[in-house]
Amino acid sequence: MLDQRRTVIEKVYPQLDGGLHPIKRVVGEYVNITADVFSDGHDVVACSVRYKHENAKKWKEVRMQPTENDAWQASFQIEKQGYYEYKIEGWVDHALNWQHGIERKIDDNQHVASELLEGIEYLKKIKKRATDAEKAYLEGLMVTFKEEVQYLHAVAEARSEKLHDLFAKYPDKFLANESEPLKIYVDRERARFSTWYEFFPRSAAEQSGVHGTFKDCERLLARVARMGFDILYFPPIHPIGEVNRKGKNNTTEAQKGDVGSPWGIGSKHGGHKDIHPELGTVEDFKNVVNKAKELGIEVAMDFALQAAPDHPWVKEHPEWFKWRPDGTVQYAENPPKKYQDILPIYFESKDWKNLWKEMLDTALYWVEECGINVFRVDNPHTKPYYFWGWLIAEVKKKHPDVLFLSEAFTRPKVMHQLAKQGFTQSYTYFTWRNSKHELIEYVEELTKTDQQYFFRPNFWPNTPDINPWALQSGNEATFLFKYFLAATLSSNTGVYGPVYEQMVHEAVPGKEEYQDSEKYQVSHWDWNVENKLSALMTKINHIRKGHASLQQTSNVQFLSVENDELIAYYKFDDSRQDETIMIVNLDPHYNQSGWVQLPLGELGVHQGHQVRVEDLVTGSSYVWDKEWNFIELPPALPFHLFKVHK
Amino acid sequence: MLDQRRTVIEKVYPQLDGGLHPIKRVVGEYVNITADVFSDGHDVVACSVRYKHENAKKWKEVRMQPTENDAWQASFQIEKQGYYEYKIEGWVDHALNWQHGIERKIDDNQHVASELLEGIEYLKKIKKRATDAEKAYLEGLMVTFKEEVQYLHAVAEARSEKLHDLFAKYPDKFLANESEPLKIYVDRERARFSTWYEFFPRSAAEQSGVHGTFKDCERLLARVARMGFDILYFPPIHPIGEVNRKGKNNTTEAQKGDVGSPWGIGSKHGGHKDIHPELGTVEDFKNVVNKAKELGIEVAMDFALQAAPDHPWVKEHPEWFKWRPDGTVQYAENPPKKYQDILPIYFESKDWKNLWKEMLDTALYWVEECGINVFRVDNPHTKPYYFWGWLIAEVKKKHPDVLFLSEAFTRPKVMHQLAKQGFTQSYTYFTWRNSKHELIEYVEELTKTDQQYFFRPNFWPNTPDINPWALQSGNEATFLFKYFLAATLSSNTGVYGPVYEQMVHEAVPGKEEYQDSEKYQVSHWDWNVENKLSALMTKINHIRKGHASLQQTSNVQFLSVENDELIAYYKFDDSRQDETIMIVNLDPHYNQSGWVQLPLGELGVHQGHQVRVEDLVTGSSYVWDKEWNFIELPPALPFHLFKVHK
Repeated sequence: MLDQRRTVIEKVYPQLDGGLHPIKRVVGEYVNITADVFSDGHDVVACSVRYKHENAKKWKEVRMQPTENDAWQASFQIEKQGYYEYKIEGWVDHALNWQHGIERKIDDNQHVASELLEGIEYLKKIKKRATDAEKAYLEGLMVTFKEEVQYLHAVAEARSEKLHDLFAKYPDKFLANESEPLKIYVDRERARFSTWYEFFPRSAAEQSGVHGTFKDCERLLARVARMGFDILYFPPIHPIGEVNRKGKNNTTEAQKGDVGSPWGIGSKHGGHKDIHPELGTVEDFKNVVNKAKELGIEVAMDFALQAAPDHPWVKEHPEWFKWRPDGTVQYAENPPKKYQDILPIYFESKDWKNLWKEMLDTALYWVEECGINVFRVDNPHTKPYYFWGWLIAEVKKKHPDVLFLSEAFTRPKVMHQLAKQGFTQSYTYFTWRNSKHELIEYVEELTKTDQQYFFRPNFWPNTPDINPWALQSGNEATFLFKYFLAATLSSNTGVYGPVYEQMVHEAVPGKEEYQDSEKYQVSHWDWNVENKLSALMTKINHIRKGHASLQQTSNVQFLSVENDELIAYYKFDDSRQDETIMIVNLDPHYNQSGWVQLPLGELGVHQGHQVRVEDLVTGSSYVWDKEWNFIELPPALPFHLFKVHK
Repeated sequence: MLDQRRTVIEKVYPQLDGGLHPIKRVVGEYVNITADVFSDGHDVVACSVRYKHENAKKWKEVRMQPTENDAWQASFQIEKQGYYEYKIEGWVDHALNWQHGIERKIDDNQHVASELLEGIEYLKKIKKRATDAEKAYLEGLMVTFKEEVQYLHAVAEARSEKLHDLFAKYPDKFLANESEPLKIYVDRERARFSTWYEFFPRSAAEQSGVHGTFKDCERLLARVARMGFDILYFPPIHPIGEVNRKGKNNTTEAQKGDVGSPWGIGSKHGGHKDIHPELGTVEDFKNVVNKAKELGIEVAMDFALQAAPDHPWVKEHPEWFKWRPDGTVQYAENPPKKYQDILPIYFESKDWKNLWKEMLDTALYWVEECGINVFRVDNPHTKPYYFWGWLIAEVKKKHPDVLFLSEAFTRPKVMHQLAKQGFTQSYTYFTWRNSKHELIEYVEELTKTDQQYFFRPNFWPNTPDINPWALQSGNEATFLFKYFLAATLSSNTGVYGPVYEQMVHEAVPGKEEYQDSEKYQVSHWDWNVENKLSALMTKINHIRKGHASLQQTSNVQFLSVENDELIAYYKFDDSRQDETIMIVNLDPHYNQSGWVQLPLGELGVHQGHQVRVEDLVTGSSYVWDKEWNFIELPPALPFHLFKVHK
């Protein structure tokens, strides 16, 4: 192909799968762009990042600066939600090249009268775009460059900073090249910083043995707010299937009075757009959502695309399910296991377009009718990826504030693909990362590889499905430091609340499941209990709210501590106004001590200068004037959360 | 976008810049393809690589095998020159999924009568494509699957290998996904394996003081062939400019009788399509080319796109050069340096399309008129990249056998871009890599990173432009091992011959340039000289011809030797029929000894079993029965080239 351009633009980052998927940001964040830009020969090359919001008409431009080895970088700040595009523009800058050449010749004592004449060509070009004052200056220069008597003055002007800046201001992008535009999807800030609390509405009653209601949930909102949570997530609130309903502890035969799993959705009382009658009415639900909003809490709904055998869809849309040659409907299975209370949606159905539309309508219903802006999506990895890509995009087109949390605990590439298809946040393997080595390795993978651009982790120490081995001992220190790690390593964090606060830990023997799980029965909790754990969770949550360094995840840097039971890390906000250092004792039983290395370079502190670190949990302060500092942490309070004062 | 497909295909490798550039291969080589392929849920996924030559109508298919973590791999062999395309196809394989599920249920002692009925659906589908024998089998199965009395037989057949193979043979690619096609450019084998010899035709005369001619060159062909070289490269053979001609040792004022630099092309005698009169006629040149062919040697021409001030182009096409405001034509410069004997071509010219066409015509002229199939391109990095992309593609469209060697000794990304634009081979930094660490690091970069797919190195220990520091001592051992390293690390290798063989090493003081360089004067060589160095170069070249492991570059694996002056590496051909181990003493002055680790795993040899290594240079054999083996190498013969016999 005939192409006269001379500049090559390559390796534009960040970039996902050749631009197939957008990178993610929230409003206010910066995007740091790098690229290789170079031309043939020795001429001076210049390049810019150009970017625009999807609704803007004009591209903005920021000049790139060379780093090394033909690489360049520039950054810009995101201002609005929605899609942005960015691309690189590169060109041989003949004016700057002329200035670069004449400087070298002048330094070499060459006579440059002829070069000055050449320069006039570039002055003429920029004059067309210059301000009046600049025009006057340029006209003066043109005269100077021509007149032998002014030679020394001309030489000084030719190499001047002032002229350099004018050439840079009005670049002549002759034969400029441009990279393919890449995309950014920008969310509201809560996509990056959120603190989730989960409980089962049916366990919210004050009295034991009574089925909780949305009215009970309303009562608990103040407590959730006081603890510093800002997203309250309810497991499904829809009618629960009665056919093949599960009994207590996941037994296949429900007894009379068994309430079933809320994930077995649909019965004669309705389906995904209906409310389980025992919880109340849709009006009651709206009241919870609205009262929560007043307290700064968003209610997150569960979006679980599956049906109980008595879900109305089964009769109304039999083609949305798979039917077997023996005339029965296909229930969920992962051979040899069977899940007879659940029918998977048949996404390969011929009627798939109507099916997709109904799923979208369901999500939009809750957004538009009840003001829901957050969905926790159940097992998204058992539904097609492109379905999610479409559904999330369609919801966000109308309601860009809506956030989607992916509940996919599965293989890494599957989890990543869901994030690429648009999930705002994702559950992670944090639940099973216990040792210092495991934690560092995993957090570095999340924050230092490409995952930082599309996979927003949400760290949960437990969920109703997962009672991890590490917590099954019931050891208080473990509950303390697991929550601390979740909430300070990751800016998105969540907890399956009452169970965690009260250190419930009895497991189904040999499994990471809760004994007498709330998934299959109504539980009763003392919601007035206040213990050390809940008090510290509250404290940590409030510290997060006041400290920008804890409101993002990718800014983490691990610090050296010469003790494998102590883990230490440093976080900072973009302006480095807020800097924190966390140190955690991972040993649930014994005091641990060691020397922690301060990140002097990052802190901009010279060796020997003093730093004051203030423990935001206890209020104590320490003055450190060495690079390595001694720390001892007991299991009774196994962490420091230091604010750095310089 | 509405898209019902379930399979995701990602990270298809090899892939360059998202498919912008083809990877490179030669006829007979394999391409090993890897990709991540996965679907939602637990269903069995299958995938294939599909590939075709540009002229083929049908795609060929090879099934991929899973490796780990949702990654798959497959490979295929290249059969023809030209472009190939390859892509991945992935689908949920419902038939294999059914078989996988029923196996698990049978193992779990579940009754699978209903599942057998389901299986009939898949039998019916493959029956349509099956052979008559297969059809009969399938019809039998359908009966068996339905009849309760045959249940045990049906169960055995359902999980049989035979049925599995039929499902794999006739996959039902319902909702299959496909990756974007990627390209391969395939060259003839010499692109990968070539041995270059360079001399100046004007120095080919038998008598001192006489300007050499093509007739003299003819005389030398037998010697070049005998030494085992297969490409004979001549610096430019065109008329040499007389205006601003360079004198001896690069002086700016030529004296009477000075012959000038052959890279200063063009005079009253003609330009790029003409022959320098003192060398002979175009017929003489054709004779050299044809006689060389008879001896298995291809003559490579220099393609140097620049002009002396008296080149005919300057008058005929003044718009192909840059003119300054003072009316003079722009000569080459890299401020403050000036090269007044050379005018660069002005690629930003408005007449660029005619200019490009003339450059292409020039290349085609030598290919079509004189049978030239190899070009060594001078300083390609001072001409636009896309120009080369176009020119090389246009030449190869008509003459796919033509090879281009890029003479770009410059920044890495610039060298890489030229290779991506289509250069067949590239000069490298080998010339300056001396220590064991430098050599290993550089060769690993060339062979273990993406560079292996597009950048074919050609290792030269010297060129007329480069008399490297390491050779300036004139030490024989250094000349010996530098050639050995070039010729055994890289399958493409070359040498600026007479100077190297005769260990000419005097340099311009403080520079890596030859004193009394042939670039500016006629030299006289004793072409009958046979020394140890030339004898060993000959031996090495002939060993290369007989050993497939030395005919490719990316197959190198470095071996551990506990001595920093000893470097050892293992090479093999695709079939592992030919395996060689090279060990080199990098110390020019002293014997060096150490223990070398045999790559037992690669060799497929168990610890304690015997291996015989035969030194192909000396003929000596050693029997090794340990993993670590003692080696001692003197500067007088500083290498082993072992053929491994098992």
